[in-house]
Amino acid sequence: MANISDGAIYAPKGKPNPVVKKGEFVFSALGLYHGHIYGICNGLIEAGGILKNYYDPNPVYMASFTKQFPGVKPADSEEEILGDKEIILVAGATKTSERCALGLRVMAAGKDYFTDKAPLTTLEQLEAARAAVRTTGKKYAVYYSERIHVESAVFAGELIEQGAIGRVLQVIGFGPHRLAAPNRPDWFFIKKDYGGILCDIGSHNMEQILYYTGAQDGKVVSSQIANYNHSQYPELDDFGDCQILLDNNATGYFRVDWFTPDGLQMWGDGRLFILGTEGFIEQRKYMNLGIKDAGGGHVFLANGKEETYYHVEGKVGYPFFGQLILDCLNRTENAMTQEHAFKAAELSLIAQRDAVVLEPKQ
Amino acid sequence: MANISDGAIYAPKGKPNPVVKKGEFVFSALGLYHGHIYGICNGLIEAGGILKNYYDPNPVYMASFTKQFPGVKPADSEEEILGDKEIILVAGATKTSERCALGLRVMAAGKDYFTDKAPLTTLEQLEAARAAVRTTGKKYAVYYSERIHVESAVFAGELIEQGAIGRVLQVIGFGPHRLAAPNRPDWFFIKKDYGGILCDIGSHNMEQILYYTGAQDGKVVSSQIANYNHSQYPELDDFGDCQILLDNNATGYFRVDWFTPDGLQMWGDGRLFILGTEGFIEQRKYMNLGIKDAGGGHVFLANGKEETYYHVEGKVGYPFFGQLILDCLNRTENAMTQEHAFKAAELSLIAQRDAVVLEPKQ
Repeated sequence: MANISDGAIYAPKGKPNPVVKKGEFVFSALGLYHGHIYGICNGLIEAGGILKNYYDPNPVYMASFTKQFPGVKPADSEEEILGDKEIILVAGATKTSERCALGLRVMAAGKDYFTDKAPLTTLEQLEAARAAVRTTGKKYAVYYSERIHVESAVFAGELIEQGAIGRVLQVIGFGPHRLAAPNRPDWFFIKKDYGGILCDIGSHNMEQILYYTGAQDGKVVSSQIANYNHSQYPELDDFGDCQILLDNNATGYFRVDWFTPDGLQMWGDGRLFILGTEGFIEQRKYMNLGIKDAGGGHVFLANGKEETYYHVEGKVGYPFFGQLILDCLNRTENAMTQEHAFKAAELSLIAQRDAVVLEPKQ
Repeated sequence: MANISDGAIYAPKGKPNPVVKKGEFVFSALGLYHGHIYGICNGLIEAGGILKNYYDPNPVYMASFTKQFPGVKPADSEEEILGDKEIILVAGATKTSERCALGLRVMAAGKDYFTDKAPLTTLEQLEAARAAVRTTGKKYAVYYSERIHVESAVFAGELIEQGAIGRVLQVIGFGPHRLAAPNRPDWFFIKKDYGGILCDIGSHNMEQILYYTGAQDGKVVSSQIANYNHSQYPELDDFGDCQILLDNNATGYFRVDWFTPDGLQMWGDGRLFILGTEGFIEQRKYMNLGIKDAGGGHVFLANGKEETYYHVEGKVGYPFFGQLILDCLNRTENAMTQEHAFKAAELSLIAQRDAVVLEPKQ
């Protein structure tokens, strides 16, 4: 299902690895604007979830979804889904600026919510989401796919957990994406709808920096955005970067951009570099630059003992989805804490809000 | 001569490619503290320079130099070299904090100066160096080896010149180094002597950012230094990073560190990533991570037409040295302008001076 030309419909398929018996975890898809909804549903289904139905007011998105999941019955309305007691979780990938409002309705209906990233576009929405989590006790989980749905990212986390590089000092992430403008909906180019590049694709990297450094919080040291070369889309940020200082004095830096050229084999050469006191890790997430058909999942480790290349594609899987299902059933936080999911969004929003806007002059 | 375990004596040998007739360009080596002096002398000799003699008051450095250049006669004193009318240029790699003072003496003696990087350690020294260049008309050239003595770096410059990635928007550099503390002289751990990590190895990256973006000047947006894990050397910065905004609104970021682990095949996995409007370039300068014995000189290009891997080791050479010799003879600035060499140092010094000091807390 993954299309190499377009990260927007990056939807990895892993091996089925159910954590529950059939029917124990029933979910629905509501808000189908972004192709990430397919990745979300794949992940939950592989982990044993039952996708009961799906709905979006836009018939185009409904038709696309039907093609991807032909065996699943469409719902007739949002109300049908929200009123269905059997449905434990609602997965959504509506327009970014509407993700919070949808989440509030879902949680108010007594269901957990699992949204595409970015989970929201303003700090006011974040406050409302945090409040709703407190009052409803429900989850507002986020699909930070560049970590939870990428095998190199999962494996790197395992290496760090095992102490392979000592204490993590710094994380640097590159999140380049192909624009593929004709395939993008209009809202993608309207800043109040998508939130800006640091809010949007920046949130992937912010989440990874928090995760790999093990930090609880951080401070945006500096951030920049630009529309360097797409004056036809005046509200597009085609470039953004951010430097962050974590509460444990580790640091992070990331760059995100829409400059992946057409000659590249993949929609983006996503990389992540993790520096530790005893070694370092590089991830080449989706491709190995300069080598055709090498697939994704390339992890390089160097430490005091070794310099090792791991090709983990198809070997690691995506434990997040099973953990999330169990978290919903057991009211635990093993997949990702609520505060971590919100903190990544919060820091991304602050980076976006405070960003210096670079002019495109030569 | 290059030792894979220690960047301090990285001294590439290229193919002889003389730009002058024998005896037209005579130079000397004065101040032999840092092994970079071997790289400097190699480069000038390959380009047709005649190394007439060498001197350092420290007999240990004299003995090491004699081993590397057994056919060359030692001088008895600095005065012997400075008073020798035949000598056009003096190459030096004395203690970093003394490089400027040596340069002032060399230029006052009517000779061009070619020093190891960092070329100086304070802004006051920089002012004195700039003044001396003005009054003497002599050159204060700098061995920014991570670009001028690295084939991938030279080749990347050629690709950009040819328009392979359009207009350069951003440069990200990683300058990791192995500490190999027992091989380092005492002054290496004294901040006023080596200048701090951003002044020292940071200057390589600052120079590259200026070079590849084609900028004349820049502003340090943020910089950080730390001694994360070497409390036994309290004045060592084992980590530094810097974000810079160029005068043409391109941007740069680099990280330098002393955390190369012993299991790595090389003293550092130096990388450089250049993002342009039409594509991008990655350099893996000294090794190809995870692949043993792949040598250096790996350049990856992606643009609208292609995704290509170039292995340029032994194919590109080091044109800087011949250009510098001709610049000295013809009073031109083709190898590198004086202002560029000084600007890289100036921005590195500002980054060091203004750096936030990160505490090593977990």
